[in-house]
Amino acid sequence: MHGEFELISRWLAPKSPHNEADVILGVGDDACLVQPNPGKRLAISVDTSVQGRHFPGDAPAAAVGHRALAVSLSDLAAMGARARWCLMSLSLPEADGDWVAEFARGFHALCAETGVSLVGGDVTGGECAISVTVMGEVDPAACLRRDGAKAGDVLAVTGSLGGGAGGLKAWQQGQRCLDDPLLARYLLPQPRLAAGHGLAGLASAAIDISDGLLADLDHLVTASGLGAELDVKALPLAEGLVARLGQSAARDAALGGGDDYELLVALAPGRVSQAQALLAEQGLALTVIGHLVEGAGIDGADLPSQVGWQHFSGGNA
Amino acid sequence: MHGEFELISRWLAPKSPHNEADVILGVGDDACLVQPNPGKRLAISVDTSVQGRHFPGDAPAAAVGHRALAVSLSDLAAMGARARWCLMSLSLPEADGDWVAEFARGFHALCAETGVSLVGGDVTGGECAISVTVMGEVDPAACLRRDGAKAGDVLAVTGSLGGGAGGLKAWQQGQRCLDDPLLARYLLPQPRLAAGHGLAGLASAAIDISDGLLADLDHLVTASGLGAELDVKALPLAEGLVARLGQSAARDAALGGGDDYELLVALAPGRVSQAQALLAEQGLALTVIGHLVEGAGIDGADLPSQVGWQHFSGGNA
Repeated sequence: MHGEFELISRWLAPKSPHNEADVILGVGDDACLVQPNPGKRLAISVDTSVQGRHFPGDAPAAAVGHRALAVSLSDLAAMGARARWCLMSLSLPEADGDWVAEFARGFHALCAETGVSLVGGDVTGGECAISVTVMGEVDPAACLRRDGAKAGDVLAVTGSLGGGAGGLKAWQQGQRCLDDPLLARYLLPQPRLAAGHGLAGLASAAIDISDGLLADLDHLVTASGLGAELDVKALPLAEGLVARLGQSAARDAALGGGDDYELLVALAPGRVSQAQALLAEQGLALTVIGHLVEGAGIDGADLPSQVGWQHFSGGNA
Repeated sequence: MHGEFELISRWLAPKSPHNEADVILGVGDDACLVQPNPGKRLAISVDTSVQGRHFPGDAPAAAVGHRALAVSLSDLAAMGARARWCLMSLSLPEADGDWVAEFARGFHALCAETGVSLVGGDVTGGECAISVTVMGEVDPAACLRRDGAKAGDVLAVTGSLGGGAGGLKAWQQGQRCLDDPLLARYLLPQPRLAAGHGLAGLASAAIDISDGLLADLDHLVTASGLGAELDVKALPLAEGLVARLGQSAARDAALGGGDDYELLVALAPGRVSQAQALLAEQGLALTVIGHLVEGAGIDGADLPSQVGWQHFSGGNA
């Protein structure tokens, strides 16, 4: 688009990258140039957020910017990677300067917080959507995959569950104050980068909870060729969730709501207390919610036979 | 979306990466893991193609897949990089299996041709759009930037110009046979990776022609702090362009049409014949079309005062 370069340079391009030594050439040439650290592997992931499907059309622009980056960074957290660079592709129906400025503010604030440099981008006309590619580095010997879990491993989850679904409900009920802890969980999720990096030498497998605990646990057990026993009563529920939804819907939100961006990890039983102590230093809980077994599938005494939960888009995004 | 994983694994995920030693973990975990070569820098770029803006809604799906990757790879060509990995974010209004299978066929064929491995992706509901992030490697000492041109350098262009705009016109006039050389230039552009890699030690600056020769030359001279004298009569016109458009519109298409994905390079005069010989081995012309001067702006005896050209979207994509 004709205003593309202007838009990028005025609002999106950072004044300087956050880790200048590693960014040889930032936004503005045909491609950026970055310098990887020798001996590391690159972890790379891309996630797209579409307005009206992944976030409400009237969500605050700064939150949209934060959230689009956060959901991609959550994938790096689940690999135990140190996040370093990102590229953004932004589609907009019109060049709304105020919106883009706020969007960029939210995006860059999370870049600064996580030490990530925005090194490239593309702006085009289209329905409002943001695709963010993130790159991080991992030690070859300490990387968290989905397929490394062992029978007998303990299942544990960082932080709390159900906040994504509970926050969406709060938004739908008219809550607009981002001080509301549930709404903040939905619109301003915190990628668990420090937790993932710390767990990289300890956990045997990890995945981030974006589709919902049951769906993502299913990915983990399938990749590892195992089954799981889940202790539903042990699930750590997000602050304010029961008050907002009631007991039964709160449990369903924690099991199937998605958009929580916590880490689900498998740990040898002997490593649980060490992992919990490590995360406690970060002010983050690590709650045991079950264990892995030989076989397949997910079982548990209090597991509802069917967990239905409406994502923002009605479950089709 | 519920069918996302199915779609990815069935049609999009490659059976095996093209350079297996470098891809530790491909599509299917939270992030992919790749192994960069020590001593190299990474060149990274992202481009988004939106249906109805960057390609016609009824374009063949295989061509859409090819083209979405080609326009991103063209940016790596302009840096002199060796292309290695890519990630794709695909938005679709519905999960049309036949379309995705054809789309994937075109995408993977170009991956195979250029030695690029698809290592990650995201599929989501939305208007049809494809965002492709590409990564390549460059020697720190031999990288083509926009800002390296010197006064007195010769301006040269690979291949031919106007094919993108001429092919769009052919499509609009009902031409549907991809054997048509103009239409092929528009729908199946060839990223000049080998040319860029070969020129990396020779040229002083480069840019790919996506916005149109004049627009991209303006980017190059602005970045280099110079001006340019253009020899409009010397522009190499695409095969069939004059027959399709007439002489005057053919010239305008070459100057302003865009979507050509050729390389525009600045070369010290003493290096021109060596560069031409190198590209001749690839079966590619390198045509001198002007030179760089002190000052600013673009000048030329036959330069029309205004070059208007309608992109597919009407100039707003």
